[in-house]
Amino acid sequence: MTMTTAPAFQDQIPHNHCFGCGPNNSHGFRIKSFWSGDNEATCHFTPQPHHCAGPTRFVYGGLVASIIDCHAVCTAIADAHRRAGRTLGSEPMMMFATARLEVNYKKPVPIERDMLVKALIEEAGPRKTVLHAEVWSGDELCAEGRVIAVNMGDTWSG
Amino acid sequence: MTMTTAPAFQDQIPHNHCFGCGPNNSHGFRIKSFWSGDNEATCHFTPQPHHCAGPTRFVYGGLVASIIDCHAVCTAIADAHRRAGRTLGSEPMMMFATARLEVNYKKPVPIERDMLVKALIEEAGPRKTVLHAEVWSGDELCAEGRVIAVNMGDTWSG
Repeated sequence: MTMTTAPAFQDQIPHNHCFGCGPNNSHGFRIKSFWSGDNEATCHFTPQPHHCAGPTRFVYGGLVASIIDCHAVCTAIADAHRRAGRTLGSEPMMMFATARLEVNYKKPVPIERDMLVKALIEEAGPRKTVLHAEVWSGDELCAEGRVIAVNMGDTWSG
Repeated sequence: MTMTTAPAFQDQIPHNHCFGCGPNNSHGFRIKSFWSGDNEATCHFTPQPHHCAGPTRFVYGGLVASIIDCHAVCTAIADAHRRAGRTLGSEPMMMFATARLEVNYKKPVPIERDMLVKALIEEAGPRKTVLHAEVWSGDELCAEGRVIAVNMGDTWSG
């Protein structure tokens, strides 16, 4: 695979103002997702000190959920374009939104280390994609997630 | 009940730097939760323009999940203190962390209106509290959530 040299999914999706992943949102988390296998994508994220939970040494659980959500949904978007033989970001837009998000928190995520988030495509139908997600800190699996993403076509943009 | 005149749960919990609900985090969402019934607490939140999803007219789903998480966990903390006959924020700390978060997104949340988030205590044991959450925009139920919060004692502070 040579896809790792391609721009991040988020940088190929136009008009993306999302607080979690939009390059056009200067206040947001601006996560970046890349293919790391045929059905797997990876996101590295460096938490900032203010991204903490109640205890300042751990990452905020809502941020963990947010990265799982955005990383999985962007992976669903990239996969749907790939399956349709289309270039990511081409018109008409084929955008996905989250229908369901589940997160199991296993261990606190240390804030001083980069997080590695994986999304694995479990099912991909014409309208719905189901993804499994894992959040790693070093060799520790800190959280697991499941996302159901739904194709909103061109109604979910701007 | 006269509890509605009490300070928000978050303003009674010391050392709370949480990105979602900590008064000590100037970069965060700083949500505020109050009792609105014996087993129910309410949070009003005014989204800012940069709290948007991909489409700028809707609230970011990760923020919806984050508010459900923090509002439910702070409700679990307030309830545990109440059941123990203790003042919220008194030493030794009795803090909760999220073990599991589920969100079902039913409708996009319009960004131009305040959000109303309710947390209902479904089960409260010695260590674990289960809460149901609802996210309303006007008279529309936009999302439902479920949070399992676990008592971390005084290990979850600072």
